This record gives sequence, C-alpha cells and structure tokens, in this order.
Amino acid sequence: MSPSGNVRLRSRAVRFDTRGPSDVAGLEAAFESGALSPASVVCLIGKTEGNGGRNDFTRELAVRAFSQVFERRLGLTAAEVEERIVLSFSGGTEGVVTPHVVAFAVEPDPGSAPTGPRLALGVGMTRAFEAHEIGRMAQVDETARAITEVATRCGITEVHLVQMKGAITAASYEETLRAERAGRPLRNNMVWSRAASALGAAVATGEVARSALADDVICQDWSLYSTTASCSAKPGLERTELVVFGQSAAWGGELVIDHTVLSDVLDAPAIDALMARLGVVAGDPRLVAAFAKSEADPRGVLRGHRHTMLTDDDISDTRYSRCVVAAVLASRLGDPRVYVSTRAEHHGPEGGAPVALVVRAT
Amino acid sequence: MSPSGNVRLRSRAVRFDTRGPSDVAGLEAAFESGALSPASVVCLIGKTEGNGGRNDFTRELAVRAFSQVFERRLGLTAAEVEERIVLSFSGGTEGVVTPHVVAFAVEPDPGSAPTGPRLALGVGMTRAFEAHEIGRMAQVDETARAITEVATRCGITEVHLVQMKGAITAASYEETLRAERAGRPLRNNMVWSRAASALGAAVATGEVARSALADDVICQDWSLYSTTASCSAKPGLERTELVVFGQSAAWGGELVIDHTVLSDVLDAPAIDALMARLGVVAGDPRLVAAFAKSEADPRGVLRGHRHTMLTDDDISDTRYSRCVVAAVLASRLGDPRVYVSTRAEHHGPEGGAPVALVVRAT
Amino acid sequence: MSPSGNVRLRSRAVRFDTRGPSDVAGLEAAFESGALSPASVVCLIGKTEGNGGRNDFTRELAVRAFSQVFERRLGLTAAEVEERIVLSFSGGTEGVVTPHVVAFAVEPDPGSAPTGPRLALGVGMTRAFEAHEIGRMAQVDETARAITEVATRCGITEVHLVQMKGAITAASYEETLRAERAGRPLRNNMVWSRAASALGAAVATGEVARSALADDVICQDWSLYSTTASCSAKPGLERTELVVFGQSAAWGGELVIDHTVLSDVLDAPAIDALMARLGVVAGDPRLVAAFAKSEADPRGVLRGHRHTMLTDDDISDTRYSRCVVAAVLASRLGDPRVYVSTRAEHHGPEGGAPVALVVRAT
Amino acid sequence: MSPSGNVRLRSRAVRFDTRGPSDVAGLEAAFESGALSPASVVCLIGKTEGNGGRNDFTRELAVRAFSQVFERRLGLTAAEVEERIVLSFSGGTEGVVTPHVVAFAVEPDPGSAPTGPRLALGVGMTRAFEAHEIGRMAQVDETARAITEVATRCGITEVHLVQMKGAITAASYEETLRAERAGRPLRNNMVWSRAASALGAAVATGEVARSALADDVICQDWSLYSTTASCSAKPGLERTELVVFGQSAAWGGELVIDHTVLSDVLDAPAIDALMARLGVVAGDPRLVAAFAKSEADPRGVLRGHRHTMLTDDDISDTRYSRCVVAAVLASRLGDPRVYVSTRAEHHGPEGGAPVALVVRAT
Repeated sequence: MSPSGNVRLRSRAVRFDTRGPSDVAGLEAAFESGALSPASVVCLIGKTEGNGGRNDFTRELAVRAFSQVFERRLGLTAAEVEERIVLSFSGGTEGVVTPHVVAFAVEPDPGSAPTGPRLALGVGMTRAFEAHEIGRMAQVDETARAITEVATRCGITEVHLVQMKGAITAASYEETLRAERAGRPLRNNMVWSRAASALGAAVATGEVARSALADDVICQDWSLYSTTASCSAKPGLERTELVVFGQSAAWGGELVIDHTVLSDVLDAPAIDALMARLGVVAGDPRLVAAFAKSEADPRGVLRGHRHTMLTDDDISDTRYSRCVVAAVLASRLGDPRVYVSTRAEHHGPEGGAPVALVVRAT
Repeated sequence: MSPSGNVRLRSRAVRFDTRGPSDVAGLEAAFESGALSPASVVCLIGKTEGNGGRNDFTRELAVRAFSQVFERRLGLTAAEVEERIVLSFSGGTEGVVTPHVVAFAVEPDPGSAPTGPRLALGVGMTRAFEAHEIGRMAQVDETARAITEVATRCGITEVHLVQMKGAITAASYEETLRAERAGRPLRNNMVWSRAASALGAAVATGEVARSALADDVICQDWSLYSTTASCSAKPGLERTELVVFGQSAAWGGELVIDHTVLSDVLDAPAIDALMARLGVVAGDPRLVAAFAKSEADPRGVLRGHRHTMLTDDDISDTRYSRCVVAAVLASRLGDPRVYVSTRAEHHGPEGGAPVALVVRAT
Repeated sequence: MSPSGNVRLRSRAVRFDTRGPSDVAGLEAAFESGALSPASVVCLIGKTEGNGGRNDFTRELAVRAFSQVFERRLGLTAAEVEERIVLSFSGGTEGVVTPHVVAFAVEPDPGSAPTGPRLALGVGMTRAFEAHEIGRMAQVDETARAITEVATRCGITEVHLVQMKGAITAASYEETLRAERAGRPLRNNMVWSRAASALGAAVATGEVARSALADDVICQDWSLYSTTASCSAKPGLERTELVVFGQSAAWGGELVIDHTVLSDVLDAPAIDALMARLGVVAGDPRLVAAFAKSEADPRGVLRGHRHTMLTDDDISDTRYSRCVVAAVLASRLGDPRVYVSTRAEHHGPEGGAPVALVVRAT
Repeated sequence: MSPSGNVRLRSRAVRFDTRGPSDVAGLEAAFESGALSPASVVCLIGKTEGNGGRNDFTRELAVRAFSQVFERRLGLTAAEVEERIVLSFSGGTEGVVTPHVVAFAVEPDPGSAPTGPRLALGVGMTRAFEAHEIGRMAQVDETARAITEVATRCGITEVHLVQMKGAITAASYEETLRAERAGRPLRNNMVWSRAASALGAAVATGEVARSALADDVICQDWSLYSTTASCSAKPGLERTELVVFGQSAAWGGELVIDHTVLSDVLDAPAIDALMARLGVVAGDPRLVAAFAKSEADPRGVLRGHRHTMLTDDDISDTRYSRCVVAAVLASRLGDPRVYVSTRAEHHGPEGGAPVALVVRAT
C-alpha cells in the first residue's frame, strides 16, 4: 500500500457526511466521480451517532456497511477487506458534530515537481501481545517500534497523528490469578492499553525519552505524554493496528497536516495558533479533516473551578467531554465535521488533548 | 428597591461557586466580608447541577436554601423574601459549566462624580394574565409595558438583558375546550409563553415594530426576535416576573453591561466582538457574569451539515445545546462560570441566541 | 408460503439468545441441526439491545445480519429476502430481558392424524396507503381486510396475535398544508398509524364493531381496542406488513397459542390465568415465545397512585414501561426471554396491554 | 424513645404519597387528623423521584422539608431533629413506584391485653469507626453489637428488617497511602460499608456464624448473607445509624412484620409465600409498607440467560434493578407504593434481595 522504491506517492482524502451509520452514499459518490479509486483507499476514519460505549453498535453497523462496498467493488471477502483497509469508526457525535467519514487513499503521484512536505500516511501492526505485556513497557516499546517502522517506510520526517486501535489480549482466569499472586496484576484493559499506546507514540516521536519510562510510570506520571496519539482500545484484539499520519518531502499531492495539543478543553488559543500556522480560517473550504481527543479533567476542576462531568450519574463524562471539545473545535473551524474521541491517558497533559488538522495546501 | 428622586444609585455584583444546589457559603461569605449587604440584594441568578427538566428539583432546593439565608438575616418569612428578592435558578451545568450564582445588589452610590453609563437594573411584574392571553399579543404588549416601566423607572437608556420568568396561567378543562371550539386554542404552555415574552422584550427595545406583530406571527415568523430576552416559563405563574438589566448615565458603581446575539451556536466571532467592545480578554478578572440562551437548531442542520441533537432519544437536545453554547462561550472567556439556559423561541434568530456580559469598568 | 389446497401445514418455532444484534449463531445452529429449514422460515421476531427510539440502529444491524444468512443459504438478494421473510426486530431489552429471536417456519405436516387446533400463521400486506388515509378509517378498513384475508387463507378460526409494521406514507409540504387548510390535517405519524392498525385488528376479530368506529373515534375513545394487535409504525412505509398468528384445526405440529390482555401493567393475575389455560408453569420448557405490548399509563396514575414515568426527563417512559411489563411477565413465566414492545394506542385498555404466549402442546 | 420499664409500647405507621420530594402535606395531614403525634415519630422512610446517584439532590430536599415540619411542630433546631428522628430517603422511583413516605411512631400502648407478637422498632448507633475499620471485621462486630443492643432494649425476639445508613469514615491521603503500603488498603467506600453492615446484621440475627467470617471473606464469599439488612452507605458518616424492625410479644398495637429473601429478581413465588404467611392478598388495605433491596445479577445472567443491565452505558444498572424488583413486588402486592433501594452486597444471595412487609394484623 505504501510501495518503497522510486515511485513517488501522494495521499488523497475525501470527506463526506452520512445520514446514518450505514450510509455509504458519500463513498460511492466519491468512487463514481473519480475523486477516489476503491483500490487506493488505505483507511476510513468516521464518527457515528452512537454513545461510544459498550452498547454502541453503530460502529459495527458502519464497518459492515462500508466493508460491503469494498467487497463488491474489489471482489474481496470481508476478511480480505479487513486485512487491507483500516475501517476506524468512533461512536459519539454529541452536540454539534456531523456524522461523517474521511476516506484516505494513497496512490502514485503523477506530478513530478517537488512541492514541499506533504501528508504521508501508512498502516502498521504491532506483533501479537501476551496479556501480561498490555499496559507495560513491552507494549510501549513494540508500539514505538511499529510506528517508527511505518514512518520510515513512508519517509515521514514529522509525525502528526498516530491513529491506533490498541490491543487488549484476553487472559484466562488462571492467568489473571497467577499474575495477581506474582504481584504483577494484569493490566489488560482499555485504560492501560490506551496509556501504553500513547506512550509508545511519545517514544517514537521523541517527545518522551525511553529512559524516563518504566512500568510504574504508566498511568502515574501524567507529565509524560504524546501530542500525536489517538488510541481506542479493543478487548480481544491481540495486535495494535495503527495508521501513522505525518509529513514527507518525498510525497506529492495537495494535502498537508499539522497538530497541536490543548492544555485543557477550553484551550481555544491553541487551536487558533494551529489554524494560523496552516493558514486556514473559520469556514475554510481548504479544511479536509479535524481530529481530536477529549477528557473531562479527572481532577474535577477546570481553570480552578468545579465541573460536574464526573459526578453526573445520568450522562457519562465521555459524552460531555466529546461534546465540549467538539463545540470548541467546531466554533474555531466554523465547521461541525470534527472527529473527537474520548479517554486520553497520556494523550496530552491531564485534562488536555491532541488536535490534528489536515488541509489542502495553498 | 430602585428609588427615584435625587439619590444616585449603583449596582454591585458578587459571583461565587457552589458545591451543590444548597451551598450558600459563598453568599454568606459575601455578607460577612461586607462585599454585599443582605438588605440591598435585588436578585440572585444561578446555575444548579440538575437536568433543567420537569424532574429537576435542584432549583427548588436552591431557592429554599438561599431564601433561608435572607429569612434569617433580614427577619423575613419565606413569602416576604419571595416578594422582595428574585431568586432565579436554572438547572443544567452540562460540560464545563461551574455551578455558580451571581448576586446583584442596588444601593445608594456614595460617589458623586458621573462615571459614564453604568449597569442599572430593576425588577418588575406584569399584571396577571388570563389563560387565553398567554402566547398572544395581550402577553406581548403587557410584557413590553412592564419592561418599559422598569427601564424608565431605573433611567435605563439601553436595555441589554431582560431576565424573565414567563407566566403560564392555568386553565380549566372546560375553558380549554371552549377555546378550542372557538377556533382560538389556548397557548398556555412554555413554548408560547417564552415566545410572547421575548417578543415583548423586542417591542420594548424597539427591535421589532409593534405593527409587525400579530397573534399569527408568534412562533411563525422567526425573523422577528429579541437580542436581550432570556425567558423561562413556569406553569401556574400568572404574572411574568422580570429583571431588566441595562445601562444608565444616572447610575454609578463600577459595573457595565453589553450584549450580542449569536447567529448560530458556533458563532464565536460574535462573542469575540462583544469582548473587544468591553475590552475584556480571556481569563479577565474584570468579568463578573456571562448570560446566554441556547437552542439546538430546529432545522437539524448547522452550517449546512446535519446535527444529531434532535434525533437522540437518550439525551435531550436541551442538554446538548446548553453544553455546546457553554463550551463555546467559556472557551472565549477563559472562564467556565457561564450561565446558559435553553429554549430560545424569538430569542435571537433560529438556532442562534443572545449573550450578555457584565464586567467591571476599566 | 402458506399454500392452499390439500396439503396439511404445520408451524415450527425455534427460540435462541443472541450475544449482540448481529449474532446469527443461534439461527445457523438451528439450520445445522435440522431444527429449521431455511426455505421454510416465514418470519423472525426478535428483541435487540437498543433504546427502541429514533437513534436505535440495532434493528438495522440485526436485519442486515440475519438477511445475509438467508441470502447466502437461499441464494437470494437482500431485496428478495425482504420480500420473502418478515424480519421484525424491536429495540429495548430493559431490565431482565434477554436479547433473543424467535424464528417461525411453516412446512408441510408429515403427520396425518388431526391433533386439535394448532398454531397457524401467515403473512400479509395491505395495499399502499395515501398519506391522508393514515390514521383514518381507510387504514382501519384495509388493515381489517388484509388480516381477514390472511386468516381465511390460513384457516385461522381464532386470531391471537397480529404483528404489524404500520404504514406511514410520506407527504409533501404542500399536501400537508392543503390537508390542514381543508380541516382534515394529516395523521401520518406513528401514533395514528399504530392506533388505526390496532383498530383494524379489532374489527377483523370482531372485538370492535365497524359501526362503532369513525375518524373522530380514533385516538379518542380508548374503550375501543384490540387484544391481539402488536403494531410498530415505520415512517416511509406505504403498506402495512402483517403476520397473523392464530389457531386452526386444519394445521398440525405441536405449537399452540393463546392470549390475554392486561388491565394495567401490574395485572399479573391475567398472566396467571393465561398460563393456567395453556397449562404452563413458571420455568416451563414448553414455553416457546411470549409477546406483549406496554404503555406507561398516560393518566400518570396506577391503581390510584402517581407514577413518575411521564415526568422523568432523563429516561423515556417507553424504556420504563417495557422494563416493567417485561419484569412482571418474566417473573410469572420464570423466563427472561420475553418480547415487549411499547406504545399501545387501542392495544388493550388505556395503560393496559395485550399478551400472547406460544407453547408446545402437551 | 423506647423507654424500658413497665410501660407497654406500640408502634404506629402512616403511609402517604408525595407530589414531589418536598411535599409534606401527607405528614401534616397525619398530624392534623391525630393519626400520628409529632412527638412520637421515630423515623421516616421514603422514596423520592431522583436518580439515586451522586447527583441526586431529591434526598437532601426531602430531608430539609420534612425536618422543617418537626422543627416547627416540636420547637427544635434542625440539628435536634436530626438527633431525634431518622429521616431516611432513598432516590429512585423507576417504573411503577409511587413516591411515598412511611412514618413510624412509637408510643405508650393504651391497650392492656396481650395481642400476640407485634411490630417493635428502635433506633441505634454504632460507635465512630476509624477509616481502616470500614469494610472489615471491626465494622461487622460493632454493627452486630449495636443491632443486638437495640433488639434487646426493644424486646425484639425476631428481627425482620435492619435499615442502616452505613458509616464511611474519611481518610487523609497519607492514611490511605500508609494503609496501602502496609498491605491493608482502606476499604472506606460504599461497597465495603454496605457489605460489612449486612454481615453485621447477619451475625446479630444468627444467620451467619461469627466464626465463618474474616476480613478476607467480606465481598468474597457471597454464600454468606443477611436476609434482613437494608443498608445505604454515606461518605463522611463516621457512625452507622440503624433502625431495627422486628416482632416483640411485649409490644402492642396492630402492626406485624415479616420478611423473605428473593433468590433472584424474578422470584415472585417467594413474595407470594410471604404474603400467604401474613394473610394479605393483592390490593389488600391491610398492607402498610413494603421494603426491598435490588441488584442486577453481577454475573450478567438471569435464569441461565444473558441480561443487558450491566453493559448499558446509557442507563445505570441501579435504575434497572430497582425498576425490575419494584415491578415484580408491586404486581404481587397490587400496590405501587413499594420501597426498593439498590446495591445488595451480602444482602441475600448474589442477584437476590431481602423483602419485608409491614401489615395490619387481622
């Protein structure tokens, strides 16, 4: 998908709204119009109107519907599509968010003149993890290795976004008990997998020194974090699946990417500065995709004042924090098509979150 | 409370956070420190951490708790406190909002030199409405009259915020049936009362010409609206209770007020412009209070793209829209102590909403 | 599917739990074991773990997943499966309900000896309705006609359950306006379609005299109702799709069906009496399927005492009423595999609901 | 309140519905009619229409409103009322439950002839617990001691219900850390306090042998449980407050009490057997109060089939389990005035729950 050698590559992206989780019309239209070719699609990243929790079946519905498009157009089985294309759907379009999908494709670049650094992306996989490795340095190191491998393969010199589906290897009851008795209780849950994945990204990009990390530092020292990670963890997955987005001078096309990190969910100035760097204004048609993480500050306080997201037993704090970050981001971009997913352990500082924008170069 | 004659008045305001709906410690502290005198308090406007709906009992708890403070300090009964001081609590602190209260007081101004226009406020009441008047021109006209009366009494030359508890006179089943048969079905519910109250404010301020209005225009022509109204309606209330906030050259003190209207819930630039006019920046300690209305655009679309607030059967659109406007407003102000209440018929354009800020003058 | 002529038919049913809306393993197992033949399946009726509201996508996911089973096994397109097999999924497994599916099949009866009345079922369709017919006598009459046709075709002499997907024909804005001006506002929404469908069943079974009905009686006189209807209405559907379950002396097999109606949601004695008539006890392995409707009493009162299902703005009354009826029904049956769907206009008395049980004959 | 010596006592109870958490009209009416005397009231146990969670302020509102009644009628301060009368409100009236209160009073019995065992009740307190004692045998033992003391004082020979507000002593961060390092992490949270309180009741009543218990058995061996406990735990409370309800041959009056335990939430037969023992039928006017605990089976399974209460991220399992047990109980009693509170560690078997009924003797 990201051939090495002398073929110059370029990325393309098409963003389309959906009328429901299974609405593939926008993708079909992109294929019909020639804006995208089915064979060049590398990944789909989309928001669906579910609750983002355990009983959110909108993601499964979307995967099923979009997979069928590729099955039919490429003559593949569902398993083959899964192998070939990352279908990454995140539930939760609280507040202003328009359910939408961004399809990314990689193809040979017909252009020859170098254009300056351009968006480059590639897909990778970690090795399979054993249950006792999840949430520990083994996961951090292997995640860093896999990211570096993709970045190197794609000629990415600056990483801006690492979209990950984090592994959570299942364990037997006996294994769980044994680990507990050995004083090294298993960490194979979503919190730990997201945390270790983010630190893996931080090591790969050099934001955190490998030497500063240890098993005991994970989920303890929140001053260590990545500003490019975006990880959701998935029980039962043994290998972390990842897409690295960055810039490469060797790629063509018209897309560029940059990122920032919010110090807290009200940090609009960080968004403004990022937009200024990219030269985009509110409502700018050059904007192609916006990605962010969100977290209700676990300390229960924002700018020195109490918030109630964590003490509300009617509505989950995950829904509130997505709603907040999406509203702040969309109000700066003048565009409600923003991707915000929640839970952000070691993704930016405590209560903060990474944001990445993909835009068409001027 | 707003004596005419030669005594120059000034307004004061104290804002304090609460740890729960019945937490009166902030108010007590303001009295203890001398920042406020119990006898000069005119109204309390606060946000409580309820759902803002029918089964939100946080408002009643807050009213009960704060009333008791005044009962004890002023030697009054609960009924006398209710007569004397407007206790206006709104449920719903979704997302970033800090539960908080702003207490406004009016007192003689010891200063003598004119200071330029200052915040002036006064309380008023409409006459009692009959059920068939609610939501019709009778309510519009009487509301306009009551607002004008307060503004005149207080020397307010520019109105910036009209906080109203709108009347919804109860009707017997027979009266309801009779009205229906007469082809003039009763409108005595929250939607119509808010709408007529807002149009009353629009007439009082001259934003809408009286001649443009008629019974059939209410809740029909959304191009007619107030930019200063903030009305909640309350079943069983026969008279609309209102507090008019504006500016007067005849008042002293250090507070000023200004307002704007959002064209939609993402309209951060309108907030920025208002802040610029008032000379406040993000995180500015001069900010004393921020008030807004919110509404999930009833057309289901925002900037041309679908939103899902109206088709979510798990969480009410009222909660989403408050969360969104509060996040946008707080992200510009750098302050999560914002008052946002929902449902905004004829309060700004469809899908938009009024915003008012009270700040300390430089 | 229900051949006439001299071939004696029998019905079969297989009930299986699901681990999620797309879990087809139980159906596949029934096919593998020979308990059912794919070609003989007439309908699937199932509960999925969604919210049962507008943003419940579990039904679509289930339909998609189960359709694919038949597509593959019978070599059909999705459209052909839809034409051939009723896939009826209802969201909402609040409280004790196990997400589960009942597959009904009709096949030639190898047995020859008459066995006494047995479960007979058949599928039917009304003609397409125009928008102005929905919720009026045109819908009632055509629904009654279609039910009668199926019952006659299947030799059903007593109807016990009419499972319907009620039509809601879409209308243009102009048509809507025209109807309003003509003083006959359109009724093309879910409430009216369910109401007219239920009254259609009541007419077909003779529970309500046709002469007692008129457009103005629908959704007005709640003393008129069906005890066998179970209708969900679906916007955009122009023809009502229905499955009639009853008993016929001409059918074989081992299944029988009977029904009752709850006078209110606490009416456990009605369930006990129905169980006694069928000779089933709590936990009886002879029980094959249990179907019920539910409704939070719209008067806000139950046995003379207030309930809070209608004034709760956090959780919909539809979720509460399903939870309640399912708990009461499951506690009598000793079995949490119960199908309860909500909203019950003219389905039993106000605040009550029909219940039907399918059991294996002794 | 429960004088020893030769004065024969009797209990009285009045049950009344409320129109909201602060509706004291039913209590006032009981005082006006002479059904109760304010000075003889020992405790109020009520259900309010909140969510039963952290942001449920209906309990505080009810306590405040009912306390004021006693303050006024008895000339006491709020603190004195709190000292004298147990005001026990539980949030959550999901489904059929009518918000209601039962007021229990104890007074000299004017009757002289012995009547057979009658309801006797008394209030008690444990000593203050240190944080490290919560959830351990120290709490179990002291709770058992306090219950025994009350039972002895009141001449209770069979205990049927122990209503407890369980202590959760606060701890400093240092204390917490020290305990963790010592390998005895603090258990000062709601789960552990409820568990230890229930086991205290089990020891007091002899249902569980003291010798079968140890720190490590708590929250581990679910086969050990009380059938009379009903404990809610309250952070910050240092002493467990408890009301023991039982029968005594030395008491007069017309009330009797009995209890049972549900093996799971569908165990209607246990309720039927209890009703038979007490001679009450559905809708019986002799019924005075019904109390139960509830729990969504933590194993995710009910009668061998999956339930979805624990995997729903929209609605808490506490709300579902209360809704279910209340529906089952009310459907047997023919009465929606049932008190069900949730979370039932060591309160009956796993997934089951205690039920107690108070009725007027025949």
